[in-house]
Amino acid sequence: MYDELRHSVCGANLLLVKYKLVTFTWGNVSGIDREEGIIIIKPSGVAYEQLTPEKMVVLDLDGETIEGELRPSSDTATHLELYRSFKSIGGICHTHSPKATMWAQAQSGIPCFGTTHADHFYGTVPVTEIMTMEEIDNDYELNTGRVIVRRLEGMDPVQMPAVLVANHGPFTWGRDAITAVENAVVLEQIAETALGTITIKPEQNAITQALLDKHYLRKHGKDAYYGQK
Amino acid sequence: MYDELRHSVCGANLLLVKYKLVTFTWGNVSGIDREEGIIIIKPSGVAYEQLTPEKMVVLDLDGETIEGELRPSSDTATHLELYRSFKSIGGICHTHSPKATMWAQAQSGIPCFGTTHADHFYGTVPVTEIMTMEEIDNDYELNTGRVIVRRLEGMDPVQMPAVLVANHGPFTWGRDAITAVENAVVLEQIAETALGTITIKPEQNAITQALLDKHYLRKHGKDAYYGQK
Amino acid sequence: MYDELRHSVCGANLLLVKYKLVTFTWGNVSGIDREEGIIIIKPSGVAYEQLTPEKMVVLDLDGETIEGELRPSSDTATHLELYRSFKSIGGICHTHSPKATMWAQAQSGIPCFGTTHADHFYGTVPVTEIMTMEEIDNDYELNTGRVIVRRLEGMDPVQMPAVLVANHGPFTWGRDAITAVENAVVLEQIAETALGTITIKPEQNAITQALLDKHYLRKHGKDAYYGQK
Amino acid sequence: MYDELRHSVCGANLLLVKYKLVTFTWGNVSGIDREEGIIIIKPSGVAYEQLTPEKMVVLDLDGETIEGELRPSSDTATHLELYRSFKSIGGICHTHSPKATMWAQAQSGIPCFGTTHADHFYGTVPVTEIMTMEEIDNDYELNTGRVIVRRLEGMDPVQMPAVLVANHGPFTWGRDAITAVENAVVLEQIAETALGTITIKPEQNAITQALLDKHYLRKHGKDAYYGQK
Repeated sequence: MYDELRHSVCGANLLLVKYKLVTFTWGNVSGIDREEGIIIIKPSGVAYEQLTPEKMVVLDLDGETIEGELRPSSDTATHLELYRSFKSIGGICHTHSPKATMWAQAQSGIPCFGTTHADHFYGTVPVTEIMTMEEIDNDYELNTGRVIVRRLEGMDPVQMPAVLVANHGPFTWGRDAITAVENAVVLEQIAETALGTITIKPEQNAITQALLDKHYLRKHGKDAYYGQK
Repeated sequence: MYDELRHSVCGANLLLVKYKLVTFTWGNVSGIDREEGIIIIKPSGVAYEQLTPEKMVVLDLDGETIEGELRPSSDTATHLELYRSFKSIGGICHTHSPKATMWAQAQSGIPCFGTTHADHFYGTVPVTEIMTMEEIDNDYELNTGRVIVRRLEGMDPVQMPAVLVANHGPFTWGRDAITAVENAVVLEQIAETALGTITIKPEQNAITQALLDKHYLRKHGKDAYYGQK
Repeated sequence: MYDELRHSVCGANLLLVKYKLVTFTWGNVSGIDREEGIIIIKPSGVAYEQLTPEKMVVLDLDGETIEGELRPSSDTATHLELYRSFKSIGGICHTHSPKATMWAQAQSGIPCFGTTHADHFYGTVPVTEIMTMEEIDNDYELNTGRVIVRRLEGMDPVQMPAVLVANHGPFTWGRDAITAVENAVVLEQIAETALGTITIKPEQNAITQALLDKHYLRKHGKDAYYGQK
Repeated sequence: MYDELRHSVCGANLLLVKYKLVTFTWGNVSGIDREEGIIIIKPSGVAYEQLTPEKMVVLDLDGETIEGELRPSSDTATHLELYRSFKSIGGICHTHSPKATMWAQAQSGIPCFGTTHADHFYGTVPVTEIMTMEEIDNDYELNTGRVIVRRLEGMDPVQMPAVLVANHGPFTWGRDAITAVENAVVLEQIAETALGTITIKPEQNAITQALLDKHYLRKHGKDAYYGQK
């Protein structure tokens, strides 16, 4: 069952390899079918070369396995928390891609230094707070989801489809699993250019609100005019 | 119609992939036929793998579509302004290539630190001024062309076939579409080496006028002696 | 004889090329059969394209060649010292991979800035002391092994399967030759992200002990829950 | 005539592409036959994909073409000056490889920070003096050779097979054309790791003379014990 979603989530996981976002098995992508009340996610620690739609794990929103013989990704509880809180998203991606991870490890958000960023993320890509010892010791993966949700408070997750988990790495999302991966690709590139930008000019400011609005809205607003309708 | 130019502009767009200058659809190349009074440009948001000469869009110099069913690149008005102002150029290329974009985001021109740079760009690669809120809100893409033209005032666009749009990224041009892309490749490489140069020695000066003249002119002057005549 | 170990050690050496850890012949991997009392190692200065299981060199633990017509890696004495001292390891890998070598050349350990690191190395990856003139002049390779062993004193080599030899480069190890190479891949990536981290925030601290414990133990402790059991 | 040397010099030029040392046509390799009194060099501005042994240019040591219909590399006079002054070398390579060029543009030699460097270059890779206006205006390429020779005074070009021409890029050499290219590969890697090293620790010192001697001599001295004799 859930053949179409199995295929698209499996394909999205394989895109991580194509876009060079992962080393070994360090990444996972999931997708949700809200009508059916299930998510599909990569099995834990399985090599991408061996991934097939059949091996994907189907879970309900409480994390109970419905179909699949393999254990789901160890980050499943994080994905579930995000799906429960961000009703508008359909796919989630987590990687340890190097450039985004540099900013996460520096506990620093990525300022919007240019239009490449503004085309995809509506402002600074936020970084979560450091997790407390209590949050780490019990229900760590669930609490990872919670610190993300807390950090996104007041933002529209559609307009800000990325976060950096402090000391860890990026999570991205989107309307489906493939879009979540594409946002991870964009995030990696803007993380790289932002690093170069502050190397050239450490005190560089973010772009103006006018330019941010222009670029974000020409691609995403109701009057968007980028691409073929 | 315009078969030859369609093919060369399509081929030039595909070179962006070959030279790793683009992610997804973030780049566009155009060419002009001044006798016919038309330009040919990439359609907006179309994946490079699906690009064919037939899909290219033919426009007159006022931006009216003459042939083609797809919308032209959202940056078309910028290309048109450059063609109208720089009478000696035949092709234009725009990308968000990471290294050049770092400098654009730092609102900094790229000083001529060496002969690789001097072989292709006759002095500092200029960066535009920040656009005003008015320039952004109305006719943004046209105004992007205008700030470029303003910044190039007093320079020969043949001798300086590149500019960095502040907070955005590079535009390059040349005698035809392929040359415009080649200049984008060179720009990316000198942006990378310049960043390394100031990392090693932050106070590094540009090269002397004598060395700049020597290298630029041995490749481009009337007494050029590089290559096979 | 020792066919299986020959094949796995040869294959592990070829992984160095696959993972882009080596230039020319600058790397070597070995494996040990503790029951037979032999190690198998790459021959010195042989190109990876020409490497076959038959060309691997079999030595006893005193470094005497038992099988093989080629000279063993010039670093053999270092490998032997590590096998003698670290009873729990089965394979060793040495490379000059660029990012890890940067830290070795800066005579600096790699702080644990994030969970990618914590998933594999239990704390700061240590750097050895500078070798004395006496240690360099006599039995240099053996002494390289000794400074490594001295630096690892008080640590469990299973929990810290990597070291940076000051002014030289990384050695990694693991339960077998392939795991040793995989640890070299991880080390290279965390060396890269750590460099970016301190570029963004020079005074960045290591992660908390709680987070280090959580990540290391969820992958490696007796209650590990990553992957498929 | 000179078939063997034509083939090896052509092959060495093609290695520049394999090792990613060149963009477009920005590099050239030559070889010398001292008994015949001729050198063979890449033709100027010819794409590597179109290079064949037949297209290589044969010159005498005064730079007169003996065989070949194409113009030789515009850097030919530099190569000739090095062959006349460094009697022990058989091949020369010039590129604008990015990492080595960063140091050349920063007018800074590359300190010997580690054993990778010491294995191939016996001490700091030197950078030339800035050329005077007179040296640039007349016989520029010949004078480029002369500033290199002047900078190498007191060094054995076999022990220091590389130099950085200030504001320009690297020249390397060796016993033949292929070795010259291999030294260019090594130079590029040590340029990269040295940049990372000073990013981590700006005040980092070069390695000790004892370690430099040990590594250089274990590979190159009369008692060398690296590789298969």
